Amino acid sequence: MSKFYGIGVGPGDSSLLTLKAVETLKNIDILVTPNGKKGGESIAFHIVKEHLNPKVEIKERHFPMISNEEKLNAAWDEIAKEIEEDIQKGKKVGFITLGDPMVYSTYIYLLKRLINKVEVETIPGIASFLNIASSQNYPLVEGENPLVIVPCTMEEERLDEILKSNTSLVLMKVYKNFKKVIQAIKKNNLEKYAIMVSNSSQGKEKVYKNVEEITEEEISYFSTILINKGWDR
Amino acid sequence: MSKFYGIGVGPGDSSLLTLKAVETLKNIDILVTPNGKKGGESIAFHIVKEHLNPKVEIKERHFPMISNEEKLNAAWDEIAKEIEEDIQKGKKVGFITLGDPMVYSTYIYLLKRLINKVEVETIPGIASFLNIASSQNYPLVEGENPLVIVPCTMEEERLDEILKSNTSLVLMKVYKNFKKVIQAIKKNNLEKYAIMVSNSSQGKEKVYKNVEEITEEEISYFSTILINKGWDR
Repeated sequence: MSKFYGIGVGPGDSSLLTLKAVETLKNIDILVTPNGKKGGESIAFHIVKEHLNPKVEIKERHFPMISNEEKLNAAWDEIAKEIEEDIQKGKKVGFITLGDPMVYSTYIYLLKRLINKVEVETIPGIASFLNIASSQNYPLVEGENPLVIVPCTMEEERLDEILKSNTSLVLMKVYKNFKKVIQAIKKNNLEKYAIMVSNSSQGKEKVYKNVEEITEEEISYFSTILINKGWDR
Repeated sequence: MSKFYGIGVGPGDSSLLTLKAVETLKNIDILVTPNGKKGGESIAFHIVKEHLNPKVEIKERHFPMISNEEKLNAAWDEIAKEIEEDIQKGKKVGFITLGDPMVYSTYIYLLKRLINKVEVETIPGIASFLNIASSQNYPLVEGENPLVIVPCTMEEERLDEILKSNTSLVLMKVYKNFKKVIQAIKKNNLEKYAIMVSNSSQGKEKVYKNVEEITEEEISYFSTILINKGWDR
């Protein structure tokens, strides 16, 4: 049956795909794959390619990383329209997204546009922070503490307040916000708890246990910091 | 090589196992499986059993759900000791845990006891809240908002404050705290955002979109509520 599949592909290592994601990848007619930079092969595509049906039609589409909302919306509208038309022709169309589709993902832009027009099935994926915690044997949260996933794009004062008042934290979108993040970590004396991992399970993973010593030039786009004040690492 | 494997098995549907979890399950010599009630087959074991090596030795162990910390610690100490001894004999020992091993899991009790004694590898799993969000096509979080995972065992005042001041929330451990949770949802006018799912992907899943109408008797042990104030559901 024709349908739109949003497929979470996990953080980078293709062994972290679920059986359901693999099964779905084999069954789709068309794969829409995001590509921030025109021409390059995306990480998400690299994860799934060995599992695709040889007959699948690959549609690499450019999703601009820009702040001009009008242009951004126009780009997403166009891709959504193409997917809708393919589904109306009876096709099963898959879209792949790094990590989990429901956590800060670009898939949500497509879901918004398609949810009331076609049938949609979303398949969860291993979020990168879950993989980092496991790979470091570093528990994220226990007992009555909340776990707070924090995009570090937020303003400094709010970030500082969240770091102060919570025990278990995942800091995402560290790249470009690194100075602010390190300042907030130092101010709250959290250096001894913080672990930063870059490019988790993507083949060039790096682990930093002294985040205060990291220079801004070292930071890669996929960097996440875990803090659990209740765990003696 | 002998090692201790902590394996996240996802929320209930065995197709949500990762390839890595399946591979690990095939390779272990001993599987330690938690069993809250003596005699019954645990959900975690039900998820993995079709993927086990026929030669694997199953050790079903009783992990009491009690609040007496001394007895609880003694029970965990004993299981950890048995695992340590098996690993010293050269065995690969796996322990399975529902959802993800690093988020409010009993696995953390074992990890604490074994991390400095034997080699440990933890394999992430699909956390139940990720699966619920995907199965409901309900995005958890976007943009600059934090995502707050909240165990509803916390006191009412704190729960109320968290619900008031955050956009994206996952309410866990709703069972036994249901009255308090519904009161906090009503007080903050969040009925129109809340979706409760019970027994996600466990074969008797139930979805509730009018949480204010749920009676306390209906609540099952595995119930989670999602709230995203930024999503018009």
